Amino acid sequence: MKGKIALEECFTIPELLEYFNPSSFASKGVIGDDLTGNLLDIHGKRLREMDENDVEFMVLSLNAPGCQAIANQKESEDMARLANDYLEQELLKNPKRFAAVAALSMHDPAQAAEELKRCMTEKKGFVGAMINDFQSVGEDGQGIVFYDDPKYDAFWKAANDLEAPVYIHPRPSNKLIHELLWKGRPWLDFSALGYANRVNAHLLGIVTAGVLDRFPKLKLVIGHMGEHIPYDLYRIDHKLDRNRFPNMPMRKDKLVRDYFGSQIFITTSGHFSTPALICAMTEIGARSIAFSIDYPFESIPNGSCWWDEYVSVNVSERDFVDMGRNNSLNIFPKLKDPLHGLKEMEPEECGVGGLRASEGEVTYGMYNKDYNRRMRKV
Amino acid sequence: MKGKIALEECFTIPELLEYFNPSSFASKGVIGDDLTGNLLDIHGKRLREMDENDVEFMVLSLNAPGCQAIANQKESEDMARLANDYLEQELLKNPKRFAAVAALSMHDPAQAAEELKRCMTEKKGFVGAMINDFQSVGEDGQGIVFYDDPKYDAFWKAANDLEAPVYIHPRPSNKLIHELLWKGRPWLDFSALGYANRVNAHLLGIVTAGVLDRFPKLKLVIGHMGEHIPYDLYRIDHKLDRNRFPNMPMRKDKLVRDYFGSQIFITTSGHFSTPALICAMTEIGARSIAFSIDYPFESIPNGSCWWDEYVSVNVSERDFVDMGRNNSLNIFPKLKDPLHGLKEMEPEECGVGGLRASEGEVTYGMYNKDYNRRMRKV
Amino acid sequence: MKGKIALEECFTIPELLEYFNPSSFASKGVIGDDLTGNLLDIHGKRLREMDENDVEFMVLSLNAPGCQAIANQKESEDMARLANDYLEQELLKNPKRFAAVAALSMHDPAQAAEELKRCMTEKKGFVGAMINDFQSVGEDGQGIVFYDDPKYDAFWKAANDLEAPVYIHPRPSNKLIHELLWKGRPWLDFSALGYANRVNAHLLGIVTAGVLDRFPKLKLVIGHMGEHIPYDLYRIDHKLDRNRFPNMPMRKDKLVRDYFGSQIFITTSGHFSTPALICAMTEIGARSIAFSIDYPFESIPNGSCWWDEYVSVNVSERDFVDMGRNNSLNIFPKLKDPLHGLKEMEPEECGVGGLRASEGEVTYGMYNKDYNRRMRKV
Amino acid sequence: MKGKIALEECFTIPELLEYFNPSSFASKGVIGDDLTGNLLDIHGKRLREMDENDVEFMVLSLNAPGCQAIANQKESEDMARLANDYLEQELLKNPKRFAAVAALSMHDPAQAAEELKRCMTEKKGFVGAMINDFQSVGEDGQGIVFYDDPKYDAFWKAANDLEAPVYIHPRPSNKLIHELLWKGRPWLDFSALGYANRVNAHLLGIVTAGVLDRFPKLKLVIGHMGEHIPYDLYRIDHKLDRNRFPNMPMRKDKLVRDYFGSQIFITTSGHFSTPALICAMTEIGARSIAFSIDYPFESIPNGSCWWDEYVSVNVSERDFVDMGRNNSLNIFPKLKDPLHGLKEMEPEECGVGGLRASEGEVTYGMYNKDYNRRMRKV
Repeated sequence: MKGKIALEECFTIPELLEYFNPSSFASKGVIGDDLTGNLLDIHGKRLREMDENDVEFMVLSLNAPGCQAIANQKESEDMARLANDYLEQELLKNPKRFAAVAALSMHDPAQAAEELKRCMTEKKGFVGAMINDFQSVGEDGQGIVFYDDPKYDAFWKAANDLEAPVYIHPRPSNKLIHELLWKGRPWLDFSALGYANRVNAHLLGIVTAGVLDRFPKLKLVIGHMGEHIPYDLYRIDHKLDRNRFPNMPMRKDKLVRDYFGSQIFITTSGHFSTPALICAMTEIGARSIAFSIDYPFESIPNGSCWWDEYVSVNVSERDFVDMGRNNSLNIFPKLKDPLHGLKEMEPEECGVGGLRASEGEVTYGMYNKDYNRRMRKV
Repeated sequence: MKGKIALEECFTIPELLEYFNPSSFASKGVIGDDLTGNLLDIHGKRLREMDENDVEFMVLSLNAPGCQAIANQKESEDMARLANDYLEQELLKNPKRFAAVAALSMHDPAQAAEELKRCMTEKKGFVGAMINDFQSVGEDGQGIVFYDDPKYDAFWKAANDLEAPVYIHPRPSNKLIHELLWKGRPWLDFSALGYANRVNAHLLGIVTAGVLDRFPKLKLVIGHMGEHIPYDLYRIDHKLDRNRFPNMPMRKDKLVRDYFGSQIFITTSGHFSTPALICAMTEIGARSIAFSIDYPFESIPNGSCWWDEYVSVNVSERDFVDMGRNNSLNIFPKLKDPLHGLKEMEPEECGVGGLRASEGEVTYGMYNKDYNRRMRKV
Repeated sequence: MKGKIALEECFTIPELLEYFNPSSFASKGVIGDDLTGNLLDIHGKRLREMDENDVEFMVLSLNAPGCQAIANQKESEDMARLANDYLEQELLKNPKRFAAVAALSMHDPAQAAEELKRCMTEKKGFVGAMINDFQSVGEDGQGIVFYDDPKYDAFWKAANDLEAPVYIHPRPSNKLIHELLWKGRPWLDFSALGYANRVNAHLLGIVTAGVLDRFPKLKLVIGHMGEHIPYDLYRIDHKLDRNRFPNMPMRKDKLVRDYFGSQIFITTSGHFSTPALICAMTEIGARSIAFSIDYPFESIPNGSCWWDEYVSVNVSERDFVDMGRNNSLNIFPKLKDPLHGLKEMEPEECGVGGLRASEGEVTYGMYNKDYNRRMRKV
Repeated sequence: MKGKIALEECFTIPELLEYFNPSSFASKGVIGDDLTGNLLDIHGKRLREMDENDVEFMVLSLNAPGCQAIANQKESEDMARLANDYLEQELLKNPKRFAAVAALSMHDPAQAAEELKRCMTEKKGFVGAMINDFQSVGEDGQGIVFYDDPKYDAFWKAANDLEAPVYIHPRPSNKLIHELLWKGRPWLDFSALGYANRVNAHLLGIVTAGVLDRFPKLKLVIGHMGEHIPYDLYRIDHKLDRNRFPNMPMRKDKLVRDYFGSQIFITTSGHFSTPALICAMTEIGARSIAFSIDYPFESIPNGSCWWDEYVSVNVSERDFVDMGRNNSLNIFPKLKDPLHGLKEMEPEECGVGGLRASEGEVTYGMYNKDYNRRMRKV
């Protein structure tokens, strides 16, 4: 599919590597030879693979845990500014292909609001923000701050007023959580399970705290096919029983389900399962879902191949193009600014549909173009 | 769901009963006591059941086979005018609840175009047309005319220019077809199978003849969850092999699939299967689908109960409201005229979503409101 | 998937080519260069492609319309015997890879029963029968015989007693039907639409005539994902209204739906749509469905690629292996005879599941094995 | 559906109420008037509602957190024995309707194995065991024990050898976890989210520790539609990257996905979402899923109504009956012992299928039996 937009795509800066080495996340040989190199690169291999795989546009974000793992407030805030300044400089080299979500220190809601405002109003190419789960605080770095605390309304108000969607991204747990829950099974603490278990709690904490009710223009985005939430929406709403929890601040006449499509959105980053996508489409609707890859923790060809060749034959053309591109323009409206110049596209413009009939493909079927050299699965 | 719009809802006039007695379609006791009475009624029982079941609006159509079974050209044309005049008069008694699709004799494309123009421009409350499959012609009434014949371009051009969507509705077979294919199994000739087998051939005949290519503003609508077509789209497109059929007029760079959502739409009339609906949503997309009942051949409470209580828990809120209402305004834009005053609605306006949480329902679950007096299925 | 069994796979004999030239079905260059050659071949290219694509076993059938298009009774009956004798000879050269369904002339139910008995009891390697829709009869060849006529109970009784499942395969229409319904749109008369429209009527004719009730060990099989029926089961059962059709012979306490999985089965031949497969799985259940290709009208690599690489990531491992292999042994129990030696297999034995994790595939994802040379779809 | 079997159905004994008051879980008025009374009751209201809703059989389990929240080892072990003795006594009053899973203290693997052996071999009516997530230990009760620790192999070996499936049920978090993760959002700590987040980690901890590999006859069961796991299986397997986690003990040639249907099963307890069920069916297969209610935390009519009236029209008859009944006999084979006398049933025996056509239902449609007094949803 031509014109794909990907929303959860990471980069890093050398200064962050001193705090946090991505190679601790991935063994040598995983996801290509050089994870750190791929994170540092923007205009080289990344862009080439985007070209080769019809990824027209990437929204870049600072590699998790980013500022959220920097427990020293000043250092965290400096890092956010540094990353955002660097990122602006880089994306302005090619603004038709790249935009950014702001990195933010979340130590101080007012400062986070200020930095978000700086990015959204004084800088170019920023379309929202990304926060990597909880903020580490305290001298030992083991303090945990969640943003459903009422004092964070100062931040949410800024995001609401600036119309800056906030992407809630996972991060590794801290030592306290890891010791308590994951010590004997560290492989589950990360992207296989712990990431989703923590982000779903944080996101639902914010929603049930009534943040979306107080700030009705605020949009939240989560990746990884919704961090388990779409599958469990029935049970979540059923069990958030207002008789049992009369003090839960969320509007009593709404379900968590009701916020999807207007204030909550999900992406497909790193979760290339068509049955899960279909489940999400039935529970929250195609217009709540946007394609993403999670580069470089996932491969651009792999995510694109899933989308272009597998999802394409499992969903309708319009939903396919909406999820692959158009919804992203609805979620992040600043992508339509002249700087980026992105526009909604019809299936035909994306090469979806009739062109598949060209060159005898209908004759031989949808699956046989490369049949005489297909890779064997089994 | 409040605000439902239903598109394939029949009425009749006494003059048509002389040609065609609907009771020959249905045994006594079927679909209520009085099929003919229900067809003749507009403002009585019909409106009361609409009120009771949140059907805000019905698009009325003359009962099939209507003018298509009248082989005498003048009588057929007179019947169309008579029915359209009568219908205008009736719907103007309550234009916030009723609109109409024009009945047309299809003996002569130019006359059909003329009558359609009269309805769309000189009369009030007409939003498109409905044709009941092939036109019977000839002295013995056994002649068959299909509208993929090039001479019908005169009609399709009018529908295109008037922006009048054309609903292709089934009709019983004539004596020739019945003898040839259905004699030993008459129960299959009608709505169980024969209707779909004939309408899918007629619709695909028109599409593959290139009519939609020559008239790009033309929209076609079929009922009964698409008359088998969505389920078979892969095979249909795969087997309409341009190498084998180089003379097929449809654009060579398009698939039948590609016309759905822009020029072909389906309704749910008389096919209240959620798995079939989900299949159609994955093949042609929610925005190609509109709720309908097929009253009085189906019951308003039955179709509405399926939609409100069964479909509501199987699709996302937005798709639900789009299919239940908003898509109809997209397919038939004249429904938005001030005469009818219909507007797009959000899920919340339709009572979809949070209200389900009221009165302790979340406490007891989605399925238990009436549990202590539920009807037993088995 | 290792161990796949394919059920609707055609061959022909030179003698049949004199009656019926398959090249009239397909333009030059369609489905490989040499359709006739592919039909005549069994142990050459066919077997090689089976090997290359993990198709362990094929049930062979005489190319449609076969004996059904031979209106001269004696010639038709001779052709059936000739084809069956030839086929036995061929399959016995490699009975671990091939079995057969008997070709039958259907002019005379008693003779059809006799020939079926000869194949099932005196010959080796026959596991059932295939009939190609209606039998052409009469001097002009335009007579049509359907097998829901009560006199065909003699044949159905034999199939029941011999426990020989009967596959109902489509055939082209005759001149009468073609002139009446398809003249201006010949491309729709064949596999794109007309085949399914006729076989679904014939199959449902047999079922609603009560044949399956009178012969409870009889099994019927249809291809092409069920010839539209699974998608419309709700409407079919709903509209086969016993109040309206009190004389319909089928058991009054059963739905058409109820026969699937025990007496009616479908295959995937020539309909490689995953959404349609999922719809069929929800309406009639995985155990009513068996993989098939429709070689040589479909390509073995194409059908196998769909199954192995696309369906594999959309259904559970057990359903995948059951539909790909095990169900065929349940439908055609004679496949388990020592002559063929087929046994049920577990997912692991079919290479389904864990092996996908080997060689770093989990590292790079399910879709990227061949990413650096993927064929571009758009 | 007649003959339903429900697997996760709780009771309590007065002695346990001293440790753990279920009313702390539920406000007055929730889930009926008297949660404690419903837990204590077996043969009264519970059985009456089973009769009224075609629940033929319940497998009873001691109310969570049960012995797992009793940090004093002796008291925990005494409680298990007390509860098991009481339960045997009660179920033997009506063994055609009730069986039990053993309550176990998990302080000491050897003692847990011993008590399980006592239940499975010396007592009657026990078909497996249920463990409520982690075991609280230590003087302050804040110690946490997970059963993926190698020393628990002694217990898993016993479960394997006794062929006793182990149901892993959620429990509330302890003070440490609650303070760390849920303090500001207590409504999320319980059944809405925290339960699933903890059980999925514990279950996957056990699986990735290789327990199922070392004990190939061991079966694990989880409720609530699989505690998020089926939806995320792609990502879980994808991210449990053996290159990154070479020391993860699970077999390197298997995926977590591969254990479903043979060693891991899920139930529908408390998660009555048809889209989630369909997703689970596509990811892990119908045969991995068994109906359950979670009484008295869910209402028997509510869960049964969902199953009988909603699921019945969304899945095939055979899958419906397998999930509603037959799979439970495969998971817990002791249910087939003469004491309980349960047998596999065909759809027809369960009243599924044709009977729906009786009394004119097909005439009026599947959804209208009660239409003239339907409850309004909106």
